[in-house]
Amino acid sequence: MNIVEKFDRLGVDNAPGQESLQKNVVLDLRGPKLEGPAVDFSHGDVDAHTPTPGSFELFAAGVEEGGAQAYTPYRGRKSILEHVASRLAEFTGAPVDPAQNLIFTPGTQGALFLAMGSCMMPGDKVAIVEPDYFANRKMVEFFHGELVPIAMRYEDKKTGSGIDLEALEQAFQNGVRLFLFSNPNNPVGCVYSYDEICGIAALAKRYDATLIVDELYSRQVYSGVAYTHLRAQRDIPENLITIIGPSKTESLSGYRLGAAFGTAAVIERMEKLQAIMSLRCGGYNQAVFSVWFDEPEGWLKDRVAQHQKIRDDLMAVISKVDGVTARPTDGGSYLFVTIPELQVSLHDFIRIVREQANVTVTPGTEFGPQFLHSFRINFSQDHDKAVAALERLFQVMEWYRK
Amino acid sequence: MNIVEKFDRLGVDNAPGQESLQKNVVLDLRGPKLEGPAVDFSHGDVDAHTPTPGSFELFAAGVEEGGAQAYTPYRGRKSILEHVASRLAEFTGAPVDPAQNLIFTPGTQGALFLAMGSCMMPGDKVAIVEPDYFANRKMVEFFHGELVPIAMRYEDKKTGSGIDLEALEQAFQNGVRLFLFSNPNNPVGCVYSYDEICGIAALAKRYDATLIVDELYSRQVYSGVAYTHLRAQRDIPENLITIIGPSKTESLSGYRLGAAFGTAAVIERMEKLQAIMSLRCGGYNQAVFSVWFDEPEGWLKDRVAQHQKIRDDLMAVISKVDGVTARPTDGGSYLFVTIPELQVSLHDFIRIVREQANVTVTPGTEFGPQFLHSFRINFSQDHDKAVAALERLFQVMEWYRK
Repeated sequence: MNIVEKFDRLGVDNAPGQESLQKNVVLDLRGPKLEGPAVDFSHGDVDAHTPTPGSFELFAAGVEEGGAQAYTPYRGRKSILEHVASRLAEFTGAPVDPAQNLIFTPGTQGALFLAMGSCMMPGDKVAIVEPDYFANRKMVEFFHGELVPIAMRYEDKKTGSGIDLEALEQAFQNGVRLFLFSNPNNPVGCVYSYDEICGIAALAKRYDATLIVDELYSRQVYSGVAYTHLRAQRDIPENLITIIGPSKTESLSGYRLGAAFGTAAVIERMEKLQAIMSLRCGGYNQAVFSVWFDEPEGWLKDRVAQHQKIRDDLMAVISKVDGVTARPTDGGSYLFVTIPELQVSLHDFIRIVREQANVTVTPGTEFGPQFLHSFRINFSQDHDKAVAALERLFQVMEWYRK
Repeated sequence: MNIVEKFDRLGVDNAPGQESLQKNVVLDLRGPKLEGPAVDFSHGDVDAHTPTPGSFELFAAGVEEGGAQAYTPYRGRKSILEHVASRLAEFTGAPVDPAQNLIFTPGTQGALFLAMGSCMMPGDKVAIVEPDYFANRKMVEFFHGELVPIAMRYEDKKTGSGIDLEALEQAFQNGVRLFLFSNPNNPVGCVYSYDEICGIAALAKRYDATLIVDELYSRQVYSGVAYTHLRAQRDIPENLITIIGPSKTESLSGYRLGAAFGTAAVIERMEKLQAIMSLRCGGYNQAVFSVWFDEPEGWLKDRVAQHQKIRDDLMAVISKVDGVTARPTDGGSYLFVTIPELQVSLHDFIRIVREQANVTVTPGTEFGPQFLHSFRINFSQDHDKAVAALERLFQVMEWYRK
C-alpha cells in the first residue's frame, strides 16, 4: 500500500459538514422543491442553542492578559487544568490529578486522535463498535491498525446499548489490546447500562487492554436514564483514557476545546504527540474552559430539557411514517433513523433531500458499511424548523419508496 | 518496538515552553543570583510585540456571526480561504487556487504534521536538515520513517544556508522521497540562496521527491537579504507543499493559525487527515486570518525593523564574549549561539542560567544530537530586557568555563 492508496480509504465526502464540497452528480429528482428554512442536521445549530453565557468574555480576558495565556505548556495552562480537573473528578466520581492525568486538546477530535496515536502501533488489532463515531474506524486505518468491529444490537434493546460482550471478549482473546467506544453512543444516542460498563471494564482489565471512552455527550442525558462513568468503577484496566469537551451540549465548538483524562503514562505520551501535532489547544481558547461545569444556575438543566422536547417531537414525526424507526435517544443530540428500501441509493437519496427539501443529514455508512438504510441527525436545532425539516424529508422519501 | 519504547524517543522535557515542568535536579550553582527581569527566549514575547491590530475585533465578529463561522468545512471557510489564497499568491509569486491548493490548520505545527502524515508511510526514508526545527525529526520518528539527516554548514557561510546539496542528491539516490526544511532556517535564521533553492527544487523534480517547505518566518527578512520562494521557480517537483502562518512575526500564536498550500492531491490528503485530527482550524479563530497580509500601512516594515535592531544589539553582546559565536540572522527571530566547552553539561548550564539569571534558552540538542555547544534564542523580546538577559547569561557562563 502506498500513501495514495492509504488515503483513498479515508473518504470525507459524506462526512458531516463537508456536503457543500461534493462534486455535482446527476440526481433522479421526482417532485417539486419543498420550501422551508434550511436545516443542517449534520451538526448542531449554535445559533439556535447559543454558547455558554460568559464564554466570549473569558476569551476576551485571555487575549487581554496576553503572553501568559497565548503560550501555555503543551498540556494546558496550570490554573485552568486545576479548575477542569476538579470539576471532572466531581462529575465522574473519581480523582483527577491536574499535573498527571489531564490534557487539553484542539476539540475532542484532537483528544481522540492523540489517544489513538499514543496507544496503537502499526499492525495492532483495535476493536471499535458498529455503529459508532465515523472517525473511530478512520483513525484505526490511518495508524495502520487492523479493525475488529464489535456489534451493538441497539434496536433490540430499550435500555443499555446492546453491545455484544461475547464478541468483545473473543476480540481480546484474539489479540485486541485497544478498545474505543462512545457513551452515549454516536450515532444512536443510547447509553450503556451499568452492567455493560462494568462488563467492558472487567474484560479490559482481565486481558490487559487499553480503553478509550468517549464521553462527549455525557452531560446531556435524559430523564429516566442512568449514566455510568467507567473510570469510577472498582474493576478497571491500568490504561484508561476518558474524553470529553464542551463542543456539543455547551455549543462551544467554534473554540475547538477538548480534554482527555486518565492514566498518567498515556497522558504523557499524548503530550509528546501534541507537541508535534498542534503544540497545544489554542492558548486564548483555553481561557474559555473556566466557564465549563460552572454554568449559570439551571442553565444546563434547561438546555437538556429543551433537547428532550425536540427529541420527543421528532420521535412523534418518525412514529407516523410507515417503515421508519428510530430508538429514542438516551443521551446526546443524535437520532439514528432507519428507513425502508428505496428506488435510489442512500447517498443519492440524501443528496436529493438536500436539493429538494433543503435538509442535510449524514448517511449511516459513515458509522459502519452495513448501515445502508439509516441516516443520522443532530437535533440540536431550532425546534420548529427541525420538525418541519424532518417532515419534508419524509415527504420526499415517499416519492422513492419501493 | 512497542508504543512505550516509541514514545520514549520523543522527548519533550527540553522543548521550548516546557521548562516549568522539568523535574528538579541538583545543580552545581557557583555564583550569586543575578537580578533582572525574567526573559523567556524559548518563544517570542507577544506582550512586547503585540498581535496584529484588528485581530481580536475580527475574532469577536466571528463569534458574533455564530454558526457560519463556528462550523466551516475541514479546509476552512470559503470566503477566508479566498482572501488568504490571493495574498499568498501575491506574496510568493505563483498562483494559489483557494478551492484546490489551500488548507487552514491549527497553527503551522498542525500544517507540518498534516503534511508529513499525508506524505509518508512507515519505513519511508525522509530527509531533514541538521540543524532544523526540533519537531521535524520527531514527526519522522512518530510516523515510523527512517531519518536521513542532511548537513547544513551555516557557520562557513555569510549568505545562503550552506546546505550540502551533494548529500541531498545522495539521499535521493538512496531512496529518500520526502524532504522537509525550513526557510528561513530554524534555529539558525539563515535564508537559503537562490542557487540553493533552485538546486533543491531541481533535485526533487529529478528524483520525483515530495518537498515540504516551512516558510513560517519568510515575512521577516532583514535588509540586504534576498528571499526565494521555491514554489515560484520554473523547475519544481509535482508534489510541493509550502507552510506558513501568522504565529511569529504577527504574534498571533495564541489563536493557533496555520496554512499549507500547494499540490491539490496532497492538500486533499491533508484535509482527510485533518478530519480525524482536529476537524478544522478553530472556527472563530479562522476569522482572524482576514487581517493577515492586510496589516495597517507600514506595520510589518516597522516590526521587521524593530527585530533587526534587537538582532544587531544582541550580536554586539555576543561579539564581546571570548569563544562565543553566532551567525547574524538573515530572517526570523532566532539566533543559534555557539558557546565554548564548559565544566557542566549543556543541559545543566541551561538550567543553571534559568535558576541564577532568570533566563530561559533552548538547548542545541533539540535541533540535532550533535549541537552540544549551542543554544537557541528567540529574540522577539523587549529590547532592553533581552540585551540585559543575554549579558547575565554570559556572566553566569564565565563561572563554568573550562
